Amino acid sequence: MTEEVNNKQILFKDYVNGFPKESDMLLSTSSTISLKLPHGSNGVLLVKNLYLSCDPYMRIRMNNTAGGDTDSFTPGSPIIGLGVAKVLDSGHSNFKNGDLVWGMTGWEQYSIINDPENLFKIEHTDVPLSYYTGILGMPGITAYAGFYEICAPKEGEYVFVSAASGAVGQLVGQFAKLSGCYVVGSAGTKEKVDMLKNKFGFDEAFNYKEEQDLDAALKRYFPDGIDIYFENVGGKMLEAVILNMRLHGRIAVCGMISQYNGQGDGVQNLFLLVPKSIRMQGFGVNHFYHLYPKYLDMIIPLIKNGTISYVEDIVEGIEHAPAALVGLFSGKNVGKQVVVVAHE
Amino acid sequence: MTEEVNNKQILFKDYVNGFPKESDMLLSTSSTISLKLPHGSNGVLLVKNLYLSCDPYMRIRMNNTAGGDTDSFTPGSPIIGLGVAKVLDSGHSNFKNGDLVWGMTGWEQYSIINDPENLFKIEHTDVPLSYYTGILGMPGITAYAGFYEICAPKEGEYVFVSAASGAVGQLVGQFAKLSGCYVVGSAGTKEKVDMLKNKFGFDEAFNYKEEQDLDAALKRYFPDGIDIYFENVGGKMLEAVILNMRLHGRIAVCGMISQYNGQGDGVQNLFLLVPKSIRMQGFGVNHFYHLYPKYLDMIIPLIKNGTISYVEDIVEGIEHAPAALVGLFSGKNVGKQVVVVAHE
Repeated sequence: MTEEVNNKQILFKDYVNGFPKESDMLLSTSSTISLKLPHGSNGVLLVKNLYLSCDPYMRIRMNNTAGGDTDSFTPGSPIIGLGVAKVLDSGHSNFKNGDLVWGMTGWEQYSIINDPENLFKIEHTDVPLSYYTGILGMPGITAYAGFYEICAPKEGEYVFVSAASGAVGQLVGQFAKLSGCYVVGSAGTKEKVDMLKNKFGFDEAFNYKEEQDLDAALKRYFPDGIDIYFENVGGKMLEAVILNMRLHGRIAVCGMISQYNGQGDGVQNLFLLVPKSIRMQGFGVNHFYHLYPKYLDMIIPLIKNGTISYVEDIVEGIEHAPAALVGLFSGKNVGKQVVVVAHE
Repeated sequence: MTEEVNNKQILFKDYVNGFPKESDMLLSTSSTISLKLPHGSNGVLLVKNLYLSCDPYMRIRMNNTAGGDTDSFTPGSPIIGLGVAKVLDSGHSNFKNGDLVWGMTGWEQYSIINDPENLFKIEHTDVPLSYYTGILGMPGITAYAGFYEICAPKEGEYVFVSAASGAVGQLVGQFAKLSGCYVVGSAGTKEKVDMLKNKFGFDEAFNYKEEQDLDAALKRYFPDGIDIYFENVGGKMLEAVILNMRLHGRIAVCGMISQYNGQGDGVQNLFLLVPKSIRMQGFGVNHFYHLYPKYLDMIIPLIKNGTISYVEDIVEGIEHAPAALVGLFSGKNVGKQVVVVAHE
């Protein structure tokens, strides 16, 4: 006889047009799950989810037709996302009960993981476990690969980061300072702007919502132009940045949160890529996970000695996960948005 | 006593909005010039212009505010452009009378060149001299650098070229075939489409003006998607191409002729650069002239043995230069647009 327990889940209701709403997801309390894998389960894990990650790219998975290598969520099934989990019952020889892991899991209290090969085993536990949804997880590698590999920064260059207080942006700004660059960030509240300057050491920061003219704002902070733009928003911000890019500028396109909800503005001045010899490069973190061990070697000591800060916006309880995810698209989160399902 | 001769000139009247018109330029027949440099002229050349090049980038120099490293023309002064010329009187130790050169010159019968260091001396004269405005000049190096350096083609890849019968496009298509790629070109008339397939060996070609739905057209020719896009037009074509790019696709932005006249469409789907990991790179040929000797070593034998074809649209007489230039923007030219000022 195996014990069945309640398994709260956040289900994806149906494909979304425009901004996602809490009601596009549904809290289900009717599911149950056995806390032991059926006898003979090979290659799978039963995990208890501890922390769930809310990330902007998840909006794209809510579309009916996803582009490129991102798949849509399945209506009626739990939302899928990154998270930190504990192995309760291992059917895979690489994992044992009690192991901590991070990777793709379900928005539910307990999940069966059918492809544990894609999980990362957590080795360093003397840092906050929730960091594996952020600085030590996908956003961390994203910032690392995007800044160092795609942007190829040189000392003294001028760097601009949009959505700069987010899960990725706050790291890019700190990496830029470590590289001897001048870095300016944009964000959407005074609180976030203060945090960029006082907590993360950006040279300057501004609230894009208070700027009538983004071109003028950028000219104020970059009188000599921008060498590197770490792009998280798209639309009118991108257009203004292109106007201010320097010769041989690089734009790492990490995301375009302003465009995911279908109200996107077209970018009109792309022809300036030619006279300015601008390289604009989209990248998906899934092509850079081979750098993860190297990244951990760099970042763990910097966290421990206080060189790098990381701010999280932590919500308690899986029932608040839909609001947390939706909040990303109006900029409610201050720092990396995390949902606590269980602390251990 | 120095002999003064008449020097017909094409003057730039004033900055242009929208499509350029012939009347934005003016034929002047009132200037005269001495065919000998004043005694003691050091470092300059007096040249007789033979062939003038009409190139799409020249539209940008007609704007009041040019972007990046492209300057505006000076109202009241001759149009400046690339051309082939003969040295009549050399005040520079690198050149002697009778040398043939190509590079920046004036739209006039005779020019004083103040910066001869930027001219290329023509060594191979057993090919049409006009080729130094095209396949052996700036468009040639543009195609070579853009395709081989920026696009980094691999055998078997799927290549799309817009404005494919133009000065650059016709070469990119032939380079793609030499590299073992599948290549499709778009152009704006049946004559050009036939030329792409029958003269230049494109695998397929289509008339973009006859396509209601560019996305559908591209899906027809690229059922498996596009690896490399050599971008010459911008706007709606770029948007349709992005929809059809494959993972890790490369877009070499050589020009965006549809955008130069101010009626440009915004590109709405740039966020697809992220999931598709697309690299979109603007480039200016002025950063690649160091490759010119290597390029000549490659291309001269291919011209002589007939492997590479090059089609020119040659107009006789400097007085027809304004119409020839303006015609580029409605696609009147079939192949590289050249104006003959004098044959020798």
